[in-house]
Formats: sequence, structure tokens, C-alpha cells
Amino acid sequence: MTTYSAPVEDMMFLFEHLKDNKHYNEIEKYKEVNSELVKDILDEAAKINQDLILPLAKVGDENPCVYENGVVRTPPGYKDVYSKYIQDGWTSLSCDPKYGGQGMPKTVSTFFEEMLSSASLSFKLYSELSIGAYNCILHHGSDEIKNKFLPKIVEGKWSGTMCLTEPQCGTDLGLIKTKAVKDENGLYKISGQKIFITSGDHDLTDNIIHLVLARTPDAPKGTRGISLFLVPKFWVDDNGSVGPRNGVNTVSIESKMGIKGSPTCVLSFENASGFMIGPENKGLNSMFTMMNLERIVVGIQGLGISETAYQTALSYSKERKQGKSNDNSNGETDLIIKHADIRRSLMNMKSIIEGERSLAFWMSQQVDVSLNHSSSEVKKNASGIVALLTPVIKSFFTDMGMEITNEAIQIFGGYGFTKDQGIEQLFRDNRITPIYEGTNSVQAIDLVFRKITEDETFKNLISNIEEEIDQCSKNEKLSKHLNSINDFKKRLIEFTNWINPKGSTPKNDISASCNDYLKFLGYFCLSFVWLKTLRKSYENYDQNTEFYDDKINTGNYYFEKIIPRAEAHYKSAVVGSKYTMDAKFN
Amino acid sequence: MTTYSAPVEDMMFLFEHLKDNKHYNEIEKYKEVNSELVKDILDEAAKINQDLILPLAKVGDENPCVYENGVVRTPPGYKDVYSKYIQDGWTSLSCDPKYGGQGMPKTVSTFFEEMLSSASLSFKLYSELSIGAYNCILHHGSDEIKNKFLPKIVEGKWSGTMCLTEPQCGTDLGLIKTKAVKDENGLYKISGQKIFITSGDHDLTDNIIHLVLARTPDAPKGTRGISLFLVPKFWVDDNGSVGPRNGVNTVSIESKMGIKGSPTCVLSFENASGFMIGPENKGLNSMFTMMNLERIVVGIQGLGISETAYQTALSYSKERKQGKSNDNSNGETDLIIKHADIRRSLMNMKSIIEGERSLAFWMSQQVDVSLNHSSSEVKKNASGIVALLTPVIKSFFTDMGMEITNEAIQIFGGYGFTKDQGIEQLFRDNRITPIYEGTNSVQAIDLVFRKITEDETFKNLISNIEEEIDQCSKNEKLSKHLNSINDFKKRLIEFTNWINPKGSTPKNDISASCNDYLKFLGYFCLSFVWLKTLRKSYENYDQNTEFYDDKINTGNYYFEKIIPRAEAHYKSAVVGSKYTMDAKFN
Repeated sequence: MTTYSAPVEDMMFLFEHLKDNKHYNEIEKYKEVNSELVKDILDEAAKINQDLILPLAKVGDENPCVYENGVVRTPPGYKDVYSKYIQDGWTSLSCDPKYGGQGMPKTVSTFFEEMLSSASLSFKLYSELSIGAYNCILHHGSDEIKNKFLPKIVEGKWSGTMCLTEPQCGTDLGLIKTKAVKDENGLYKISGQKIFITSGDHDLTDNIIHLVLARTPDAPKGTRGISLFLVPKFWVDDNGSVGPRNGVNTVSIESKMGIKGSPTCVLSFENASGFMIGPENKGLNSMFTMMNLERIVVGIQGLGISETAYQTALSYSKERKQGKSNDNSNGETDLIIKHADIRRSLMNMKSIIEGERSLAFWMSQQVDVSLNHSSSEVKKNASGIVALLTPVIKSFFTDMGMEITNEAIQIFGGYGFTKDQGIEQLFRDNRITPIYEGTNSVQAIDLVFRKITEDETFKNLISNIEEEIDQCSKNEKLSKHLNSINDFKKRLIEFTNWINPKGSTPKNDISASCNDYLKFLGYFCLSFVWLKTLRKSYENYDQNTEFYDDKINTGNYYFEKIIPRAEAHYKSAVVGSKYTMDAKFN
Repeated sequence: MTTYSAPVEDMMFLFEHLKDNKHYNEIEKYKEVNSELVKDILDEAAKINQDLILPLAKVGDENPCVYENGVVRTPPGYKDVYSKYIQDGWTSLSCDPKYGGQGMPKTVSTFFEEMLSSASLSFKLYSELSIGAYNCILHHGSDEIKNKFLPKIVEGKWSGTMCLTEPQCGTDLGLIKTKAVKDENGLYKISGQKIFITSGDHDLTDNIIHLVLARTPDAPKGTRGISLFLVPKFWVDDNGSVGPRNGVNTVSIESKMGIKGSPTCVLSFENASGFMIGPENKGLNSMFTMMNLERIVVGIQGLGISETAYQTALSYSKERKQGKSNDNSNGETDLIIKHADIRRSLMNMKSIIEGERSLAFWMSQQVDVSLNHSSSEVKKNASGIVALLTPVIKSFFTDMGMEITNEAIQIFGGYGFTKDQGIEQLFRDNRITPIYEGTNSVQAIDLVFRKITEDETFKNLISNIEEEIDQCSKNEKLSKHLNSINDFKKRLIEFTNWINPKGSTPKNDISASCNDYLKFLGYFCLSFVWLKTLRKSYENYDQNTEFYDDKINTGNYYFEKIIPRAEAHYKSAVVGSKYTMDAKFN
């Protein structure tokens, strides 16, 4: 089995020392969310994730969801743990107290998202989309709808889905065919087929609330004619009790390479009754409220899985003896953790993972500000940063997740390829994360064509970084890294100017380089948060020398060994796309 | 299912225009192996691989080998195709006519190895280790042993295995515990457990010939006390007929993430009778004859799987419509192959795959020279090059195989994660290739600590490259690439001097950088063969403009878009290993 002990100490370091966004600290309702409270939450979260949820990962892989006689059954044990999970209130962690939530900020709930991803992605997905549905309904539903559906979702008794994809359309939602026809009661009758619906059907909750994209009869073509509908699996009476089955049926579930404990469904809507959510033909906008937060969470999935892969490989490297290291003095076989090459591999993982966690925490503060600050100007600025970095977190973290799970397998040698160790499962489970919620290429296109074109936001990001550089300039120990980050920043600006669609670079050159740009920005952002972490580590050094020595060492590793990768992406990008576009592919 | 049409045209281009090793062309017995003969062989090979073997890939994945009542059964259909396969003589392709082989050079058999890897790695492994055993026995067995065992192996009626790994030792063979005690007849009684034995037991052949590493009672400790034994599953009479079962039993087969159609066995040897092969305590040397050629073949597996992944993704990208490309003029949804980012991904694959095929062909000529040239000096030089580049081909091709199968999945979007398309199977199947026959880290260590230290050989490689550069200097169209390869060569020499263990670089710095060096050399070697390919493409341009336009475009792509990656490996390596070694990993 895999090894996982929740990194509570690292999380508490972030919460105590890197909660430095002044606008975040101005949010009134989060002032009571103090270290003591957060530590309690994380300790409890660690327990349920380590003790109850982690074992479900292997169970789900070995006993995938089953579809029989129109019903989807979850793997053994999922039901019991899910009951305990909602009883302890974990679905409600970040939700509004008005609907029964605990009102925790993203700075806290993101830690929980990471732990849950580390323990079992399959199990996580049952409640993850519920939170997505919650966010979407909260922002776009009428009060009536909110009062009817949110409390049960927050409680975890009902779950949610996002129904976007159809056989002919994944990335390109303009091709959606599902129809919605208004009936005499102001409701809509939804008909069509949706595929790849995560948690589309299962036996953990009493009801499933589908959020469905569809077209009304006279809707304009393409993405401008899509509306959003709430379609429950079982109809809900005015008094909130669950009534008869609605016209939503499960056609099949996918046979997949990973996340086998999570059912990926083909759903057929046949005159299913639903409510329109938000304005007609603006469904994509409404869905994107859900999608954007969800995309960050998918990035966190990559981080969480990476952490488990790292810990599992680390623990194996402290047990397995093989060969003699360079520093061998006693002539006996060494633990493989003594070998420089194994250490390099572990340090690659560790320096990326801790950087990602720190970036996620920085981003969480921005998300909290964007949702909760009292000034609309401040909110807008934070929203800009969130929008800019969402595709980076989604893609970079999940791509790194593939690299990290791949390296972790390698540390196990032949044992890594067998099912016994659980490490290959992490590699397979993580493989969905660069795909769903918009493939990583779609994210890169979004980043370049829609996000960096917002000049103010990009400037805002750069000034955040310059502020940090400025603060670090007093610390001599950081001077080497400051040089390196200044060069890096210069290059980032150069690269951004080159790729900005408002400039003169041909469009195909831009499109062919989006992925390289995203990776470059990802490595850059990690260097930014590592710089911050290093500064704080020196500032607080005496409080915990062992912890900070480790942080400083890992940060130094990132600066020296990881940053060189970024330049290759720049160099390969700016040569353009002549040979890419000239290829005949016969 | 996957798409695969054997790249016979590209192979014939190599055979006709890049068979330029003058020593290869001096080998008397290969003078009759002309283009016409090779084309016939490749056409036949394409047929059996495309029509009969390719479909077995999915069958084996869905119906893995079964171990029941001490017997291993292969997936449905494997037996019939294997019969046809040996009847058509494919196992004998590269074997000595003296034992019933067809005596084809590696330049030809390597093409076949690639095709077979493209079609089904699981199916391939049944005969692949037979060829390994054949090579080992051919070089180290007595005439009696050779006459007794080789004809049946060449015919494919018997198969072979390599029994090295034990639970406590994979990479570090010095830890082997299996015992071999001499009996009164001069035979040995072998006892011990071997794990991860590919094709260790199955129902395709009448007998299985195990080559087993073990220790005689008074053997020195470590790798200097290991001898090699031939242990047949069924005893073989002096007249060559198969007798009673020997003391080799299958304990279990592994449950693995991929190559499920190939049984990976735990074998228990209990007083099993065997012959010693080669001199006592020199077993590792003898086994390495088998291992080294086998390592090249594992590299070819990575190439073969990459080709199928590429073709499958390419074919999907010509069917799937999604979004509008930058060059869209009719307002209709475009095929995804029109999108610049998809094209970049496909060109990454194509430029690496064709480069690898060309490097494998160049290497095959060296192998043929090393085994068959009349001058022992020439043989020795070629052997040096083969030894130097074996770890590069093994590791670089298999790592690139992971990158390529990963990118291929991505092109499929959500469909790539499901079992239906077969693309995720390639990703899983290929995952064993960076592990077996010595992990890629072991290869990198071998490259740096044992191979580049041979100064003459390294000089020889460089002078091969300089000769090519010299020949290209007449072609103005190549001048830009010549600048780039000259810089690259300078950097290679710099990197080599830095990492050479005979220099002053600390040993841990070297060990921590081996993998980076191997990748660097891999990218470099591909640039060398691409240069060669480009020169030949210009020289022969008028003979087939469409083919050469494509080659030139792909080569140009490699030079511009892929080469920048190498520098990151250099930069990350030469900073050393301070933070790698200082890490506490608590």
C-alpha cells in the first residue's frame, strides 16, 4: 500500500507565516480563523484521510464501480466511509453557514482538498463535484432554488455533477446538441446524451443534482446559445422531500485506466424536468463559475497525488538496500536513499511539491479576496490574478504530477510496475488530471489568448513579484537567487511580449507555443513562492532550525536544479511554427 | 483499437541511403543482403505484424496470462499466432544458418524488432528472450550444448529466459543467493528463488531454457562469485528429445500495470539440474553478452511503441473535429490536426521517432561490424561504440516512449483515458521499458562510470560526427544546422570533461548528474543522425520529392524545436549536488 502522512507541519508553516496578502487579512469574517482552529481542523482531516480514506484507494482500483440493471454501485466500503465523512461535516467545510456550511476560507479548505486527493482521488470525486454544483447554484440560482437544494448538498446527503461533454463535443462546447424545451409550468424538458459525467450515478447519496448545459429551441448557434439547467435525479417537492425518478438514465460507465473507484457515466436525458439557472443563453458563463474553481481543485489533485507518490517512494528508499553509495565506508550494501541519483529524484519531487503547495496557498488567499473583500476594486484585482493563474495551477500541477508519479515508480524498480505497491495506481489515477476540466492544452490557450492579454492583471502579478524581490534584497543569503529571479523575470516579460496576441507574432506561432509558455510561467511562479518561503525561513530560523534548514535546502535545490528547465521552453517557443505548420502528415 | 501500418518506406530509405558504414559494407556475408531481399522481408513482416499480431495486444490486456494449478496459460489466440510466427521462421531471422537461422544482419532484424514492438510487446517477449538465450549460448556454450539447444531455440519450438533478479537483488547482482552444487556427473544442482522472470513459464513452446545466475559453494562474495547455468524446464536427452520435468516450478505470476499478455514469473529452483555455461565465477560476463544486445532491443521496444502511439494519435487527429483553427476560412469546425498545438505535439513525436529509427540503424551497422568484421581492430572499435551507446539507446528511447505515449493520450482528450482506444495501453505497456534490463538510472551510471571513460571510444564517436559535419559543409542549406551542431558538440565535450570520473568532479556530483548527461547525449546523437538524414535527403531529393520534403521538414523541426531541451540538462547537472546530498529526508 502507499504511504501517506498528511503534511500538517508544512501547511501550518504556510498558514502562520505566509498568510501575507494584506487584503486577505482585511476580510472581517476570516479574522476568527486562527492558527489554533486551523491546526485542529487539519489534525482531524489528517486522521480521516489517513485512517479511513487512504485504504479506499486500492479497494476502488481492485473493485471498480459496477453498472448493473441500470444502477451504479460504488466499491466496497465507500458507503460507510462516505457516511462518516458527511457526518463529520467535511463536505460543508468551505460552504456558507447560511446553508449549513462551516464558512472556512479557501486557505483552509485547499489544504483539505490536497489531503483528500492524496488519500483517494476516486473517493474525493463524489463530493468534489457537489462543491462545484454548490458554487454554481450559490452564484446563479434564485433564492428558491438555493433554499431547496443547497442545504442538502452542503450536508452531503445529495451530490452534484457537471454535465457538459457530449460525444461530438469536449473542448468545443459550441457543438452541444442537448435540447431544453420550456413547458407550461416554466420548467424545462431536457433531452440529449451527456458523456464523461463524473459521479453521474452512484449509491452514496439520496439524490444527484445535475447541472446540465443545453440549448433552448431558438437559441443562437455556438457557445452563445447555451443555457444552464438544474436537473435532479429524483424530483424534489416544494417542501424539499425527494419524489419520483426524473427522466435521467445511466446508459453505461466507462472502463478507464485509472480512478476506477469513481464512475464516469454516460447519461441519457429523456424529457427530464429541470430549472433554468441564470439567464437564458448565458449558461456557459454560469458554468464557468463552477469550472474555474474546479480547475484549481484539479491542480490540487495533481499536488495531492504527487505528495503520496513522494512519500511512498521516500519510504521505500529508506527500506530497500541495493549497491554501495559513493560515501560508503563500511563495505555493506546501502539503503538506496544513500545514492546520489535516487536523492536527486526525490529532491526533484520534494522541491516541486512544496513549491506547488506554497503557490496554492498564495493563490487561495487571492481567491478568498476575490470572493469576500469589501472593496469591489480589490476583489476585481484579485479575480484577475485568479483568472490568470488558474490555467497554470491546473496544468502545471497535473503535468508535474505525471513527472512525479513516473519518477516514483522508477525508484521502486521492477516492484514499481506491479500492483502490490500501489505506486503505479497513483500514476494511472493522476493521468486523468491533465485531461478533465479542459485539457492542459485548452488551459494553455486560455492563458495566452484570454488571460495575459489583460495588461493590468499581468502588471499586477509582476508587481507582486517585485515587491517580494524588494523585501528579499535585505537578505544577503538570497542575493544569488535574486540575480537569478531577476533574469528569469526579464525573460518572462520578453516571452510574454512575444506571445501576447495583441503583438505582431503570427497566430500559429502563438498557438504552437502556448504550452511552452504555460510551463515557463509555472516554473517562474514556483521560483516566486520559493523566494518568499526562503525569506520567511531565514526570518523565523531560530524558532525551528531543523524545519527551516530543510526548507532552505529544498528552496536552494529548486533555484539551482529546477529553474534551468524553463529556458528550454522559451528557446523552443520563439523559433515559431514554420515546420509545425508545413508538415504534411500524409 | 490502435492504428499501425509498418513504416517500410522509412526503413527502406535508411537501408538504401544510410548504410554508409564502410566497415559494414566490407562484411562479406552481408553483401547478398540487398534492397530487394530486405524489401521482401519487411513487406512480409509488415503483414504478420499488422494482421495477426497487432490484434493480440488488446486481447492480452483484456485477458491476462493466468496461473492455475502450477501452469501458466497465455491469452486466447497467442498459441495459434505463435505457431504461424515460428512456422514462417521469424524467430530465426538473425540467427546463424549453422543452427537453422536465416543469418540476417542487425540492420534488418532491428527493423523487425521495431515492428514487433509496435504490434504487441507482450507477444514479442515470448521470443525476445529466446534470442537473448541464443546469443548467450552461442558465445559461451560448448559445442555440445550449442548443438543440443540452439536448433530448437532458433526454430522457436523452445524458448529462453534470463534468470537474474531475486527478491533482495535487482540492480545489485552481487547479492545473488541462488546456489549451484556440482554433482557426480559434472552437472549442477540449482536451488533458489528468481523473480520478475519474463516468459518464465507459458504454454507456447515445448520446453523453456532458463539461463540462471547462481553461486557455487566456495564462490567469492559479490559479483566475482557468480556463475551462469543453463537449466531446462524439461530435461533433454543426449539425443535431444524432451524428457522428464526438471526441478523448476512456477510459484506465481505478477499482477502488473501493463504487458499483461506476458507472464512475469516467480520461479523456484529446487535441486534443478543444469549445465555450467562459460567459466566458473565469470557468469556475469557471459550474461552481459545477452544483456547488452537485449538492452538495445529494449530501446527498440520504446521506439516501436512510440510509432504506434504516434500513428494512432495521428489517425484520430484526422477524424476528430473540434474548434476552429487559426487558418479557418469556412467557419466550420476543424479537424484537430489543423490546430497548431496538436501539430506541435505530433511533430515532437515524429521528429523523435524518425531520429531514433535512424540512430538505431546507424547503431545496427556498428553491431554487425562488431560481431562480423574480419579485422579484430575494426571489431574492437565498433564494439566500443556499441558499448558506449547501448545505455543511451536503452534509456533515451524508453523515456521518450513515455513522453510520446503520454502526449498521444492527450490528443485523444477524455477518450484517451478510456480502455476503448488502446492508446492508454501503450502508455502502460511502455512503462516497463525504463525499468527492465537495468533501470534507466543504472544505464546512466554505466554510461558515465564505465563507458565515457574509454577515451578512444569517445574520440571515435566524435570523429564520426566530425566526418559527417565535414560532409555536410558543402551543402549551404545545412549551414544553420552546422552552427548549431558545432555548438552542441562543443558543449558535449565540455559536459563530458566535467562528468568524466577520471577528472576532478566530486563523485556525488557525477552520480547525481548521470541521468542528465545521458539525456544530453541522447539529444545530441539524434541531431547527428538527423544531420546525416538531411544531407541524404538533399542528395536524393529529385528521386522522391514528397518523401524528402517531409524528411527535411521533420529534421528542421528537430533542430529548431527539440535541441533546446539539451541545454537544461547541462545547466542543471553542472551546479553539482550540494543540496541533493545535504537533504535530510526526515
